[in-house]
Amino acid sequence: MHTNIKKKFPLWSIQLQLMLLLVGSANAQSNSGILNLVPWPQEVRTKNQGRLYVDENFTIQLQNQVMSPRIKLATTKFLRRLAGRTGIFIDNGFAQLATTLPNAQMEINYDRQGRLELFEDESYTLEINSQKIRLEASTDIGIVRGIETLLQLLHREEDRFYFPSHQIEDAPRFPWRGLMIDVSRHFYPVQVLKRNLDAMAAFKMNVFHWHLTDDQGFRVDIHSRPKFRELASDGQYYTQEQIREVVAYASDLGIRVVPEIDIPGHATSWLVAYPEMASKDTIYTLERFAGIFDPTLNPIKPITYEILKDVIDELVPLFPDKYFHIGGDENEGKHWNENKEIQRFMKKNNIKDNHEMQAYFNLKVLKMLQNHNKIMMGWDEIMVPSLPKDVVIHSWRGIENMEKAAQSGYKTILSKGYYIDLMHSMQKHYQNDPMGDKHSVLSEEEKKNILGGEATMWSELVTPQTIDSRIWPRTAAIAERLWSAKEIDDYLNMRHRLEPNNQYLEELGITHIRNRDVILRNVTAYQDITSLITLSKVCEPLKAYTRNKGGIEYKSFSPFARFVDACNVDAIDAIGFNTAAKAYSKSKKDTDKQKLLQYLQLWQENNLRMQQLEVTNMLKPLLPLSANLAKTALLLQKQLQNNTISNKEKKDLQQLLQTLKMAVDDIELACLPGLEMLANQLKTN
Amino acid sequence: MHTNIKKKFPLWSIQLQLMLLLVGSANAQSNSGILNLVPWPQEVRTKNQGRLYVDENFTIQLQNQVMSPRIKLATTKFLRRLAGRTGIFIDNGFAQLATTLPNAQMEINYDRQGRLELFEDESYTLEINSQKIRLEASTDIGIVRGIETLLQLLHREEDRFYFPSHQIEDAPRFPWRGLMIDVSRHFYPVQVLKRNLDAMAAFKMNVFHWHLTDDQGFRVDIHSRPKFRELASDGQYYTQEQIREVVAYASDLGIRVVPEIDIPGHATSWLVAYPEMASKDTIYTLERFAGIFDPTLNPIKPITYEILKDVIDELVPLFPDKYFHIGGDENEGKHWNENKEIQRFMKKNNIKDNHEMQAYFNLKVLKMLQNHNKIMMGWDEIMVPSLPKDVVIHSWRGIENMEKAAQSGYKTILSKGYYIDLMHSMQKHYQNDPMGDKHSVLSEEEKKNILGGEATMWSELVTPQTIDSRIWPRTAAIAERLWSAKEIDDYLNMRHRLEPNNQYLEELGITHIRNRDVILRNVTAYQDITSLITLSKVCEPLKAYTRNKGGIEYKSFSPFARFVDACNVDAIDAIGFNTAAKAYSKSKKDTDKQKLLQYLQLWQENNLRMQQLEVTNMLKPLLPLSANLAKTALLLQKQLQNNTISNKEKKDLQQLLQTLKMAVDDIELACLPGLEMLANQLKTN
Repeated sequence: MHTNIKKKFPLWSIQLQLMLLLVGSANAQSNSGILNLVPWPQEVRTKNQGRLYVDENFTIQLQNQVMSPRIKLATTKFLRRLAGRTGIFIDNGFAQLATTLPNAQMEINYDRQGRLELFEDESYTLEINSQKIRLEASTDIGIVRGIETLLQLLHREEDRFYFPSHQIEDAPRFPWRGLMIDVSRHFYPVQVLKRNLDAMAAFKMNVFHWHLTDDQGFRVDIHSRPKFRELASDGQYYTQEQIREVVAYASDLGIRVVPEIDIPGHATSWLVAYPEMASKDTIYTLERFAGIFDPTLNPIKPITYEILKDVIDELVPLFPDKYFHIGGDENEGKHWNENKEIQRFMKKNNIKDNHEMQAYFNLKVLKMLQNHNKIMMGWDEIMVPSLPKDVVIHSWRGIENMEKAAQSGYKTILSKGYYIDLMHSMQKHYQNDPMGDKHSVLSEEEKKNILGGEATMWSELVTPQTIDSRIWPRTAAIAERLWSAKEIDDYLNMRHRLEPNNQYLEELGITHIRNRDVILRNVTAYQDITSLITLSKVCEPLKAYTRNKGGIEYKSFSPFARFVDACNVDAIDAIGFNTAAKAYSKSKKDTDKQKLLQYLQLWQENNLRMQQLEVTNMLKPLLPLSANLAKTALLLQKQLQNNTISNKEKKDLQQLLQTLKMAVDDIELACLPGLEMLANQLKTN
Repeated sequence: MHTNIKKKFPLWSIQLQLMLLLVGSANAQSNSGILNLVPWPQEVRTKNQGRLYVDENFTIQLQNQVMSPRIKLATTKFLRRLAGRTGIFIDNGFAQLATTLPNAQMEINYDRQGRLELFEDESYTLEINSQKIRLEASTDIGIVRGIETLLQLLHREEDRFYFPSHQIEDAPRFPWRGLMIDVSRHFYPVQVLKRNLDAMAAFKMNVFHWHLTDDQGFRVDIHSRPKFRELASDGQYYTQEQIREVVAYASDLGIRVVPEIDIPGHATSWLVAYPEMASKDTIYTLERFAGIFDPTLNPIKPITYEILKDVIDELVPLFPDKYFHIGGDENEGKHWNENKEIQRFMKKNNIKDNHEMQAYFNLKVLKMLQNHNKIMMGWDEIMVPSLPKDVVIHSWRGIENMEKAAQSGYKTILSKGYYIDLMHSMQKHYQNDPMGDKHSVLSEEEKKNILGGEATMWSELVTPQTIDSRIWPRTAAIAERLWSAKEIDDYLNMRHRLEPNNQYLEELGITHIRNRDVILRNVTAYQDITSLITLSKVCEPLKAYTRNKGGIEYKSFSPFARFVDACNVDAIDAIGFNTAAKAYSKSKKDTDKQKLLQYLQLWQENNLRMQQLEVTNMLKPLLPLSANLAKTALLLQKQLQNNTISNKEKKDLQQLLQTLKMAVDDIELACLPGLEMLANQLKTN
């Protein structure tokens, strides 16, 4: 239908005050000429100044003869969100067929029901003028995508709401735009998954990769092998009916669901249930720590494949998607090395190392999947020449591996650089393109093997209470990277467009904003949390693997209810302060100075407020941090105001900065670079 | 086991500053000598000053030979909540059998697994000294109850936590302590029900009454009659698997689940699916409004009973509970009157009125239930002499009906006075005793027929986003009324004990606190919500049926996302102000005057802040309210400070009060009584 969509960079360019941008004024949509669309569509044409106002008579008409369940649900949800966001009592709560409702404000038309498969058409055309909204697509999945664009276009004009006149043609750059959720390290109830599926759809993502098993738990009930449920899940597993429920829910949103069973490593939970599959004869218990562990399936025992077959035979009917993920990462083969029978087998069969042993194992699994007409996928490590070329290599170790896979003719998707559990900045993820930089080694033909990417929500340090704040808003930036044109890469611009849409995730039940306060109330035992909120705006959780060193600081059932769990990446005041400090260092402008002084004043006052709280267990480690920040702020304030500071004070300052550099209670002070920058410019009296 | 528990009123008596009480200081538990137990146990003995401190080595040992699934789950949840609330990294995440873990801090012992049936033993004994916690009960349900008491006993001593030395013997006053949730007017996903079941268990409630069908929707999938799902649910229904999931979840908490199908009235949804059951030949569509409607099952057609039998045959296996609720309320019989065949049938069979016609219908349904060995229950209206005496009469119309039922030998439970949807004060519900006042007409024998009561969450004006705030904390007061001794009736004392436990409902996922801010953010389009929070503390939703007049202001899909939906009963600043105004009127004390002046100042400043917001659709109606409150506050402030006011000002004040009396946007100004009280005392200059 839209075979020839031109990629066109939006004409506007912006210079935005970062503070305004990040703090966000009231519904930014009403205050700027920028369309707050994320991901940015392939083509946006502004037609005129026409506005289609929304009132209680707003109606949706479907021009098809029948309404697919997907459209029924999508239009109903759209009407509820529109009513909820505006407060308008829309009288007609459901879309209607053209025969029953002529002359609606919004008309929808599509050719056929979409199929949940790779390369399915997700394109749509959205045309708005002051009288009519027309949304057209080849498939009803395209309609689902277009509806999200429309909702993002909702503008406010004082107390009225309207859709601005525009013509949008859109289609994704990559066909595979996924989010992986690891439900093994922590388990997430169905509702948590559903609300995150809604949020994925809001940013046009189309693959939910469900990491179902790992060392810490086997999370799906296998009827023929009940011990997985009984012994290897702590009672936290999905029934098959729940799996079907989630898959159906995703399907309505045009999201494919790819299951993963991670084998032959990362398999402790399998061996807790069925130790007869083990490579080592020992007693297995569910892993409570994080890391890479030794328990490994035994690749030479028939029982291993019998149980695997039972698992796959039961899982396959639950997941209609063509792809099936077998994990395959981080098998260090220690227990294989220790097992004499495996060693004998390898020698006898001329298998020269563990990697080849794993390839042997994978081919057996591949056979099972092929019997079910499934295509196998796995992490980097599974790639060996003997694999058929339709296998998808899921790259987590680096873009070089990915390029190697693409050159070898494999389909591949990227997750390296999209590890949202590592608490890196949104900017870092946004600037990570699956096609690499401009100097790609790949031919045009090879590039076609790159299908897209997946954000990976590994869950060692994440609970149902905090998972939304770890996924959002950063995953929306990844969603844009995978949908929009490569040239759409202005981070600040995207951040600005994203902010209101990030806020409105709340209407889908996403808890990333509300649960910060829930945690802080608990931290203070229900005292006034204002001072902790202010402190949280300059604190970020430790990044990469520096939180939970060695994987043994936390057990899977440890509390994730402390200050660090209320903090998030891209701490807003830290960004504001660091940016102002940088600008001031360069230009010494008074506006920047005034901004800096405001922060420095804020942190001193905040400390006074915080020190008035009754000390609780979880509050205690934060008090010195706040106090030291306040002392630092006082000295820098003095310097900025008087342009002078004594030697003694300078020494104190250096000492304070050293102290602030040390992680406290698993957080780092994210405004430290700004503080240091200012301190380094000090003149000594 | 505990056959002779003495009822003993706690020895302490309190005089509490209402402000301190309601605003709540940090973890009240740490600041007062009162044990924050709700419901208050039958007997509490303070032994000594011993404290059992909680640290990472805290362990639970079960003295039984095996651990029931209920105990496994209850102890695991307890450990998670204890760790989460304290931030302590408890090393042993699960209770152990005595054989594997001697010398634990906490020992649990029970005689047998509890059965989910009326009059099952829920008693427990909890004994705490500085070395050991001992929790004993006849059944594991008693243990579940006792664990909640223990968690409520958690005290904080600066940054440490401990359980204080006490001996508690406890058992419920009434065996039926329920919460009804109407899932027809609005549908609630499984997770919403689960978290509310957890909250029920936190206050020792033991019956979840599931109102599954009504005019607005038929919410359970009946496989043999798929049109209920297809035509009468808007796609919002529970699968049978989900029903089982909720029933199992409740069972783990020691909560019975009683299903209700409301027939023969309140049955529009039935007739949308199967119009052949109707008393009138017309086209039926799902009801979108609220009220009493005419569509009624046809009591003389065989097909009616065929379909009813199919529904009951499928529901019965899902609900193991002995009781089955058939509704039966508000059948006005209009369509029966209009139906000539029904009229002929009545004449022929000597059925003299619609009430007798309904009795005929009920007896047929009764027969079906008896075939399944179920006991029927229904609302007041079902009571006729022909019913067997084990039927339970659910009284919603008044205590007189209930007494009549009890005198007639029927078992009965009370809901009149527990209609939490009507937004009456917690105090009103708390003081509503199923046994009535002291002058009960019932004999001791008749009193035994009163089994307890149920809070009823009718859901015309309640969504998944707001339901928690409508149920909690008021339902906890009803829970105490039904569990604790009749003499435990000091409202302020209960309110004080409840506050921290109400707050800690957040750890069960209850959204009553967090979602206020979510709604206010939406109302302001993500501007600063501070001023709206302050305003919400003196505003309450309209009470009884004054919101949604005639049932037609709202449709079931209208937005419930406005300011009124963020407001709640017992608005905290209104109570504080009204109380101070009353006290000041009597005694003219300066402390009360200062308190009043603080509020008056607050509302003026708040108005300035609020008028700075960009005006949104949902904000607009609140601005005059805030402005008028501020003007009123200014005049009263002047009067209080100067003890004088001009005639013109007095006239203005009267006019302002008249204006403030009028409902705005479905809210009422709850501090109005205090304002009026002060105004009435004005001297004119």
